Order: sequence, then C-alpha cells, then structure tokens
Amino acid sequence: MIRRIPSSAAGRSRVVVHDGLVFTVATARDKSQSLRAQTVSALAVLDANLAEAGTSKSKLLSATVYITDMARKPEMNEAWLAWVDQANPPQRACIGVALEGDDLSEIVAVAAL
Amino acid sequence: MIRRIPSSAAGRSRVVVHDGLVFTVATARDKSQSLRAQTVSALAVLDANLAEAGTSKSKLLSATVYITDMARKPEMNEAWLAWVDQANPPQRACIGVALEGDDLSEIVAVAAL
Amino acid sequence: MIRRIPSSAAGRSRVVVHDGLVFTVATARDKSQSLRAQTVSALAVLDANLAEAGTSKSKLLSATVYITDMARKPEMNEAWLAWVDQANPPQRACIGVALEGDDLSEIVAVAAL
Repeated sequence: MIRRIPSSAAGRSRVVVHDGLVFTVATARDKSQSLRAQTVSALAVLDANLAEAGTSKSKLLSATVYITDMARKPEMNEAWLAWVDQANPPQRACIGVALEGDDLSEIVAVAAL
Repeated sequence: MIRRIPSSAAGRSRVVVHDGLVFTVATARDKSQSLRAQTVSALAVLDANLAEAGTSKSKLLSATVYITDMARKPEMNEAWLAWVDQANPPQRACIGVALEGDDLSEIVAVAAL
Repeated sequence: MIRRIPSSAAGRSRVVVHDGLVFTVATARDKSQSLRAQTVSALAVLDANLAEAGTSKSKLLSATVYITDMARKPEMNEAWLAWVDQANPPQRACIGVALEGDDLSEIVAVAAL
C-alpha cells in the first residue's frame, strides 16, 4: 500500500509512505527570505511533513539539501545543526544547484516510519 | 535478491529491483530535441523501465527531475503533468544542474514493485 | 531499528542502515587532488563505508555521482569502471553541481544489506 499526501502544486505529493519508508520534500514558505531563513523554514515544513506521515526527524535516514549558493553553505549548516537530532542524524549531502524562482534552499529526505 | 537490468552504457544498470523497491533512471533517446521533447522522451523511457521491472508510474514513490535550464522548468512541468498519474503522483524535486553532452533532462526515480 | 555511523562532521551520519537498506555518502580524503583521483578516493571511502555497514559494492542499488565539472565526466567514469562490480552495477546518475570547498566529486549511494 502507498499513502500519498498531496502537494499544493499539481502532479506531485509532498509525502509518500510505503513499506516503512517516507519520501518527502520541503522548501521555505516565504521565498523572500535569506538562504539561512529559508533553510529554517524548509526544516519546519519538513517537520510538519514527517509528522503528517507519522514519523519525526529522529528517524531520518537520508537528506539531500539543495542550495543555490555554496558560499552560503555555512548558513545552511548552522540552521541544520540547530535543528537536527544530534543523537540521530541522517546521511546528508549538500549540493549547489539552480532552484525555481526565489527558492534558495530545498530539502529532499527519506525517513523510516 | 537483487535484480538488475543493464544499461546500454557499461558499469551501470537502468533498473535495479530489491525488496519491493525499484530504482531507475531515464534520459531522452534523441538528444537533439528541446528540453520539453527530451522530457517527454525520458518519461516514455521511464515507463518502459518501470514496465520491465514489473511496475508502473502509478506506483512511483519519488522522482528527481534534473534539467539544465531552470528557465525552462515550465516546459518540463507541462510534459510531467500530461504524463503523471494525477491520482498517484510521487514526491518530486526539480533541480537545475549540468548534464552530459546534449542531455537537457534526466529523471531518477524510485517506485514500489 | 536504525543503525548510524557518525560522520567526522557534526549533525550527520556517513552510514545509516535500516530494514535492509544502507544509505551512505563519500568524498575524497585529499581535496587537493584531481577530479579523477578524488573519485578514486571517494570510491575507496565508499567501500569502507559499505564494509562498516556489513555490505559491499556488489549490493549497490543506486548511486548519484556529483561532480563539479561535467567536461571531466570521462575521468570520473574511468575511475568508476575500474571500481564497479561489472556483474552487479547499480543504477547511476552523474550530475554536474557545485560542491563544498575543493571537493570535486561526491558520491551518494543506497545499497542492500
């Protein structure tokens, strides 16, 4: 069985749950903010997504953090370190890419249920 | 048990199936086409890969769509929306990156079997 | 149950094992080297990570190879082909992105246990 929580955008889910695995994606709610603030916001959205799936950040397995400016990775990382469960951190990769519009930070994650 | 379907390129599989999960990747067959047309083609290749694995787009869990020009994300998205099972969309991220040669669109996906 | 092997960097794991799946990430030890040499080094780190998890490259399911210069993808690919288990290759995507500092190659992988 596959459980899906729709995104506000058509044609995609913001959470998909299958066989004990949770696939989810998060971006900041306010795209006018700095990379740091957008990461804080995206992590809050990620928390909400994980909660809706029935899990939490302590069960994260893997995270890919996409940012648009690698010179600002330290800002992302400060937001991350203030947020992550230090006793249960996921595998993580931070990658510099182009994102849509004013998005500066986007997080894709896999968690256990 | 792990089942692998070889790619035409050495040293990689275009489909890997393990314990109810299918990992696959697709690019356009004709690299001379536009980003939109390449996305349509890559999605058709994805369909074929999923069918060979014994599953289909209605069981997609997660998709990463890599494109080389984020200004053309709307073209990718139109191709996506015409293709995706609207009742069963995966978690999706669209990321602007550099791809090989004339590839303009590449899709990596995880599906349930 | 989730088993985590800490990274040398805070707030993340270099290996996470859950329900028969292994999530791991690797970069080169010596960041002063060429993209080719960094890929060779990252693949050796990947081997070590997989061994610590209790698995090996013959059980790789999916790999994402991030490199900073797609013009040098042939160098990455030569290192890959010399390393990969040709009878058991994973699904692979090679993506051109920005990485941190002097990193030229970073590999994220999912393996079966």
